[in-house]
Amino acid sequence: MSGEPSVLAFCGGVGGAKLALGLRAVVPAGELAIVVNTGDDFDHLGLRICPDLDTVLYTLAGIANADTGWGRAGETWQFMAELARYGGPDWFALGDRDLALHVERTRRLAGGESLQRVVADVARRLGVDAQLWPMTDDPVRTIIATTEGLLPFQEYFVRRRCEPAVRSVTFSGAERARARPEALAALRSAALRAVVICPSNPWLSVDPILALPEIRAALGATAAPVVAVTPLIGGRAVKGPAAKLMAELGIEVSTIPIARHYAGLIDGFVLDEVDAADAARIDVPTLAAPTLMRSLEDRVALARRVLAFCESLAAAEPAARAARRTGS
Amino acid sequence: MSGEPSVLAFCGGVGGAKLALGLRAVVPAGELAIVVNTGDDFDHLGLRICPDLDTVLYTLAGIANADTGWGRAGETWQFMAELARYGGPDWFALGDRDLALHVERTRRLAGGESLQRVVADVARRLGVDAQLWPMTDDPVRTIIATTEGLLPFQEYFVRRRCEPAVRSVTFSGAERARARPEALAALRSAALRAVVICPSNPWLSVDPILALPEIRAALGATAAPVVAVTPLIGGRAVKGPAAKLMAELGIEVSTIPIARHYAGLIDGFVLDEVDAADAARIDVPTLAAPTLMRSLEDRVALARRVLAFCESLAAAEPAARAARRTGS
Repeated sequence: MSGEPSVLAFCGGVGGAKLALGLRAVVPAGELAIVVNTGDDFDHLGLRICPDLDTVLYTLAGIANADTGWGRAGETWQFMAELARYGGPDWFALGDRDLALHVERTRRLAGGESLQRVVADVARRLGVDAQLWPMTDDPVRTIIATTEGLLPFQEYFVRRRCEPAVRSVTFSGAERARARPEALAALRSAALRAVVICPSNPWLSVDPILALPEIRAALGATAAPVVAVTPLIGGRAVKGPAAKLMAELGIEVSTIPIARHYAGLIDGFVLDEVDAADAARIDVPTLAAPTLMRSLEDRVALARRVLAFCESLAAAEPAARAARRTGS
Repeated sequence: MSGEPSVLAFCGGVGGAKLALGLRAVVPAGELAIVVNTGDDFDHLGLRICPDLDTVLYTLAGIANADTGWGRAGETWQFMAELARYGGPDWFALGDRDLALHVERTRRLAGGESLQRVVADVARRLGVDAQLWPMTDDPVRTIIATTEGLLPFQEYFVRRRCEPAVRSVTFSGAERARARPEALAALRSAALRAVVICPSNPWLSVDPILALPEIRAALGATAAPVVAVTPLIGGRAVKGPAAKLMAELGIEVSTIPIARHYAGLIDGFVLDEVDAADAARIDVPTLAAPTLMRSLEDRVALARRVLAFCESLAAAEPAARAARRTGS
């Protein structure tokens, strides 16, 4: 689990984790590293909860709930039922199995360990042989400005079920946060063959990672090809509020503004076959592929297509890529 | 649940809780108050855990595990299994249901509420109509000096299963701790008809309560008869380390030193029928009764006998009681 990664993925929660699992099946053991959004992390019931990290961890460990995409398979809810009985805050569902990770993580953080160290240790115990890197050990918190005022991410996302209309999204603490040194080193490494921005919500799940100045600079300077995979299919989000949020922000709900959102950072864009016609309005090379990942086979197949796309981009002239990234 | 209590019980965990449940069945609703030992409380996994309070609470709410006497009936252990998988500290068993109380209590204490307020609210939600009073809201911690050094109570009791030989027991913080004002008021109240020291371990579970200077003084001055119920039957503890501990402290393992332990504080002592002969060596009036409480009927029957004993003591001349208490 040391060794330099050949593939680096940027990932939020459910959608991103699906492709991360596909990549894990395709990339040689130990060569996949995943930088995970921590902007959704929050303190609840005195516990540090890291929804995206846990979704990726559980997915790669093969213990995620396949129906919901988040939480544990075979979960039970005794804790939650009792908490409600005591009048405790029960708007954020914490299963009995899931809870162990939050309690143990909180205990170890309180003892002075870094989030990275806790994640690495738990991943090892769960037999995960990809490297999971929280984007930072520093506190970055996604804040949603809505028509009903400012809401911390989980208040917006879970408690209010994304109902309030979004005006803007900010990442408190991002400017000062230090990125994972391993992620920066990977982006500089000659061993890196591909950077994949997974099909997570660009505004809510990927932007917090890109809001880290060190990450953004290193991504712009990496020699490896960078591709983003669309989270929208036919103008609809597979899961989550991406389409609703784009409409509220006054953005056309299609893959085109998503590719533009990453302009200057990506060398290629992967859109769904049903959106193939959009390619004409996207300024970087595109790959049209089946992006709906229902089965493990779907995930592996998409991962293969994405990595092959990266290879083809790497074969293109580096100068052309550099020009594309700077928008010149 | 306001109103002045007519019966005040002092209580530790399992054994004491059994008699508390019997008293609850016998004393009119709202007239029973129970002062509970908090010397066993500790912080574990970032959670405040109050074993004796929880045992009494669960017992009175009818949701205690009848086999163990502690913890919840119908408990599940998903959390614990996962915690062990992560290498977390798993020596203290926390069931999924039980955990909700610890998490919610910790959350409310961190928000500035008193332990008393949290306990009262949870008891109300669980339909408990006795008043449960933690002996104090201040930190008092039972420390066991053993042949292997000083051990916090739960380290001795649970982690080391009472194996290290005990040299002495101290109650850190007791001298400075303020007792529950309600308990002091009850001891002064003319409405109080009986004070019952439940059959909990005198050295480990009752002494922490008596170590509070305000409690000890108020108990010595109360006009109500005070009786203690033996936790030993035929020289053996029904549950727990009382007999082993007495032997290690160089004390004869019988009811006699237990009655003497409470000398100056009690007006009467309840021993088991099998120990009736010990009465001749006990300096206060005694009642010999069946003290083994297997069924609810046993608990209710013992509670009736104990309260009737208190009534008979109350009928005795107050001056004689006062002289007994001061040892004159």
